[in-house]
Amino acid sequence: MENTLDRIQAYGDLKKLDFSELKPLCEDIRRFLIDNVSRTGGHLASNLGVVELTVAVHRVFNLPQDKLIFDVGHQSYVHKILTGRKDKFNTLRTSGGLSGFPKRSESVFDAFDTGHSSTSVSAALGMARARDLDGDKYNVIALFGDGALTGGEIYEAINDAGHIKTPLILILNDNAMSISKNVGAVSKHLRNLRINRYYFKSKRHVSNVLDHIPLAGAHLKTALEHCKRSIRQHILPTTMFDELGFKYIGPVDGHDLESLIICLEYAKTEKKPVLLHVKTVKGKGYPPAERDPEQFHGVGKFDPSTGAVAPGSMSYSSQFGKSMIRIAQSNDRVVAITCAMPDGTGLIEFSKMFKDRFFDVGIAEQHGVTFAAGMAAAGHIPVIPLYSTFLQRAYDQALHDVCLQDLHVVFPIDRAGIVGADGETHQGIYDLSYLATMPNMSVLSPSSFEHLNAMLDYAVNRHSGPIAIRYPRGNTQTSYPYELFEYGKAYTRKQGRDITIFATGRMLARAAEVSELLSTSGIDAEIIELPTVYPLCSSSILAAVKKTGAAAVIEDNIKSGGLGEHIAELLLENGIRCSFKGFAYPLVPIEHGATDELDTKYGLDADSIAKKIAEMIK
Amino acid sequence: MENTLDRIQAYGDLKKLDFSELKPLCEDIRRFLIDNVSRTGGHLASNLGVVELTVAVHRVFNLPQDKLIFDVGHQSYVHKILTGRKDKFNTLRTSGGLSGFPKRSESVFDAFDTGHSSTSVSAALGMARARDLDGDKYNVIALFGDGALTGGEIYEAINDAGHIKTPLILILNDNAMSISKNVGAVSKHLRNLRINRYYFKSKRHVSNVLDHIPLAGAHLKTALEHCKRSIRQHILPTTMFDELGFKYIGPVDGHDLESLIICLEYAKTEKKPVLLHVKTVKGKGYPPAERDPEQFHGVGKFDPSTGAVAPGSMSYSSQFGKSMIRIAQSNDRVVAITCAMPDGTGLIEFSKMFKDRFFDVGIAEQHGVTFAAGMAAAGHIPVIPLYSTFLQRAYDQALHDVCLQDLHVVFPIDRAGIVGADGETHQGIYDLSYLATMPNMSVLSPSSFEHLNAMLDYAVNRHSGPIAIRYPRGNTQTSYPYELFEYGKAYTRKQGRDITIFATGRMLARAAEVSELLSTSGIDAEIIELPTVYPLCSSSILAAVKKTGAAAVIEDNIKSGGLGEHIAELLLENGIRCSFKGFAYPLVPIEHGATDELDTKYGLDADSIAKKIAEMIK
Repeated sequence: MENTLDRIQAYGDLKKLDFSELKPLCEDIRRFLIDNVSRTGGHLASNLGVVELTVAVHRVFNLPQDKLIFDVGHQSYVHKILTGRKDKFNTLRTSGGLSGFPKRSESVFDAFDTGHSSTSVSAALGMARARDLDGDKYNVIALFGDGALTGGEIYEAINDAGHIKTPLILILNDNAMSISKNVGAVSKHLRNLRINRYYFKSKRHVSNVLDHIPLAGAHLKTALEHCKRSIRQHILPTTMFDELGFKYIGPVDGHDLESLIICLEYAKTEKKPVLLHVKTVKGKGYPPAERDPEQFHGVGKFDPSTGAVAPGSMSYSSQFGKSMIRIAQSNDRVVAITCAMPDGTGLIEFSKMFKDRFFDVGIAEQHGVTFAAGMAAAGHIPVIPLYSTFLQRAYDQALHDVCLQDLHVVFPIDRAGIVGADGETHQGIYDLSYLATMPNMSVLSPSSFEHLNAMLDYAVNRHSGPIAIRYPRGNTQTSYPYELFEYGKAYTRKQGRDITIFATGRMLARAAEVSELLSTSGIDAEIIELPTVYPLCSSSILAAVKKTGAAAVIEDNIKSGGLGEHIAELLLENGIRCSFKGFAYPLVPIEHGATDELDTKYGLDADSIAKKIAEMIK
Repeated sequence: MENTLDRIQAYGDLKKLDFSELKPLCEDIRRFLIDNVSRTGGHLASNLGVVELTVAVHRVFNLPQDKLIFDVGHQSYVHKILTGRKDKFNTLRTSGGLSGFPKRSESVFDAFDTGHSSTSVSAALGMARARDLDGDKYNVIALFGDGALTGGEIYEAINDAGHIKTPLILILNDNAMSISKNVGAVSKHLRNLRINRYYFKSKRHVSNVLDHIPLAGAHLKTALEHCKRSIRQHILPTTMFDELGFKYIGPVDGHDLESLIICLEYAKTEKKPVLLHVKTVKGKGYPPAERDPEQFHGVGKFDPSTGAVAPGSMSYSSQFGKSMIRIAQSNDRVVAITCAMPDGTGLIEFSKMFKDRFFDVGIAEQHGVTFAAGMAAAGHIPVIPLYSTFLQRAYDQALHDVCLQDLHVVFPIDRAGIVGADGETHQGIYDLSYLATMPNMSVLSPSSFEHLNAMLDYAVNRHSGPIAIRYPRGNTQTSYPYELFEYGKAYTRKQGRDITIFATGRMLARAAEVSELLSTSGIDAEIIELPTVYPLCSSSILAAVKKTGAAAVIEDNIKSGGLGEHIAELLLENGIRCSFKGFAYPLVPIEHGATDELDTKYGLDADSIAKKIAEMIK
């Protein structure tokens, strides 16, 4: 079977295809995506949804002169396939392989690195301003989903962009869901905008010139002028985007190549910001993903013929969800808030059982945290689980709205530490540092599921004030016997003479491995677990190191501002004479790859740690 | 002269006044405000603008049962005057005195602490949700300015609130400016909404019942029903708020008590979220403030009869502005971005001289930082001065969009360290900690104006990658002779034998005082300035402490995660045997007061430091 995709070798090849060949090309791309992602895992449903859209963009625009910015960026696979990275797709999200997100360091076709939501319009506006200062004429295109429109930053950018008198093309990829079902008033507003069939009737006669775009000529000009008039006449007059100064075009069927290409060609002719509203189907063309787009949002390996995905094993996320249900049953003050992640954070079951006490606020971490503060000020106990990397978005709200007021808000921090395949933009390795800058904030870290259960119980029912519980992606547990969690207490997990190793969370298991290795060299290590990370268990720490005369801290966090530094200053200020070594991630962007591989690369594997400790206390 | 304001003693007294007495009351309040703020300094123009609005709110609602949340909160003076705090107004913003912002700890009438922009709707929605869960019926009111609408968080909240089916009252206090002239598409949209005179014609006949509100009765009911119909008929149909699901009412003249009270009474009857759009004049009733509202936004002492304000002395902010002009003249790649603070950050002159290279993006720190990243990715050199406390809002963008991509963005950080009178929510004492969590970020800190000038030159013209320059409010300088700034170099400012004191920025002058005091006790201190705070000047630090055997770090930052901890870990990991003490602010909310008083209270005055050092090295 002839494969149209194989004919795309150089970047310009896409433009050489007949228009009639684009549809088969899209089919080839879909097959390629399903086939590859079934083996590597990755973001499937969103990429299946933007196949035609991405093909149309590359048909109409000329990268890298034109700049294309993907919001979030997990929907950039088709773009990568069309820009010379098809043959590396089997390395997706693995160490040294293709990133799952746009990366300027990976390709000149990636204009801006993304990962978190709602940044694309800001970056695009910055580039458009730079272009104008330079007297250049290239196009700047931001492509974002409707989910991104629940995040405040994009609105700040739209507000700033709406009144400029310079070209800027925003493409809203509206699949009526972000990661899970979308929420909020904007989403409702968008749903009310229906595809206007009449709107594209008059374009049919221009389809015969589509083959000649971008070779242009008189035909094209006439056709486009006609379209422009037609679009003007039928433009919907009262979208919020019109009111914010944009030329709104749409909604257009995002799987109709002809409509897409005409609209994009039209958008190119505008001298002011354009918002092109494209309706797509997440998972399009692959029935299992169309049926269950959430399952296929970020998916592991699966059987491409059936769509069968290996059932998820128990994780800290699912344990959190279970614990929440138990706690909510006995405490009717507790409520749960999610920022568009009911599934990822383990709250699906809770959301069904406690409809009234469950709030999905959108990809809106800032609002979510202040909203929680408001509920806490009114006497409820909000629990707002967030991925570590996304809590960064609400740093100010956590500090300013929750902590300064000492409000009782519980922050379960999921995906804390190295997250692996998602890479730089998603590593949860900053929270032990940034949480330590927040007055009144306590931080806990469990080393087993039971531990998390007990901590959540404490945080909700017995603590007052802000409290975070950080736990890793996955299911690393220690085999230490479970004890009741006691706030502020350090636990000696193994007695030892020669050095005290402090660890918490995922790294407690690592400390045990290190201790085993050390014992073979005749070094008797003490292991102290700090389930309460902050405030520091100062007296236990001081007493232990005074005894052994040596300390090591192992943490799943950056070194800078982390647990190790806090302990180091404590020891030094108290005049404890000791040798000391902190083991943590360095302050550099940590790329994607398997967690174990990254640990090893950055010297956090048991061998490296044991070796350095042995050298230190020799 | 009878003073109506003096008759407001208990909270209910306002409701006992005849309607005709409200206008004289407002006049009294204005006089009181001008008189007091001329002596204490504070936020004047915004409070003069909301006199009638605040009186109307307290006339219609019943606090503290009803919850009133002030966005930002600097416009809460009238509210404080009307809720039992009039007699403490002479202590405004001084140690132990009234806060310039709402504080739950100060009064039960303050429902939520604010300080940063755009949080009010989130908090209000949280309270409304809590109220509904509790089956209560009280009103929740958020009062925010049009400037707050340039901040993304409020949009996240509006998106979340627009589709709820429960009462929530948002009051938009639209004075067509935030701190300085407002920007953006929303602002333009609001300007297009003109006060509809006809809209309030029919209300005239109800004014005779205004005296009886809230004593209610048949009259009132009829009148309100009439108003409701009238309002429904004349409601403007196409505001963005309607489209987002709100009942939009307005615009209404914010200095017309009758209109305000009728609209608020009407808003109370709605079972869904209402947005009441109120147009006010900043500085209303005080000609000097009406003429120059920016000058009277946050003002020092002034002459109430003439409005004459003492001319500002040279500050780090003004030095920054001067340096920017010099640098922009010789480097045409440099651009300046402000988040609604051209005046506060010293950029007014620059904005006039370099119109094309100056961008005011609104109170939108998130967007501003990613916008800067976009410009940097396109080859320009963006300089984005921010107050330390407001950069917190863009923590994620600085880390995720700028630092991970190692983009050349310059962050001048104004009001770093203790800011004094603004208190808890505005202290800039977190940045040395949170900046240390950002890969690739360098941090500089000048100890004189010339120093800042040289650093900015370096940061723009010779550095690559992200770089911050933190400087304090005001003009603390050291008298050390100026030398060229060299990146990454530690400067020995005084040789010494017994202890090494590390300091930077404002605290270098403190170190000099401490050293003087120590010398009287026969202790010979060495002073090392670290103009490059991060990355740490490790070798110089190690060599110095190795020599003296004792180290102290003085920093205008919290202790947790700050410079002291970084140095402590460095010393400990390198096996330097030494005594050590870090001097910094503790991790508790630091209240308002004079900088010197706060330094003393928290042990950062020269006496306290010298005493502790003397004890340590004895």
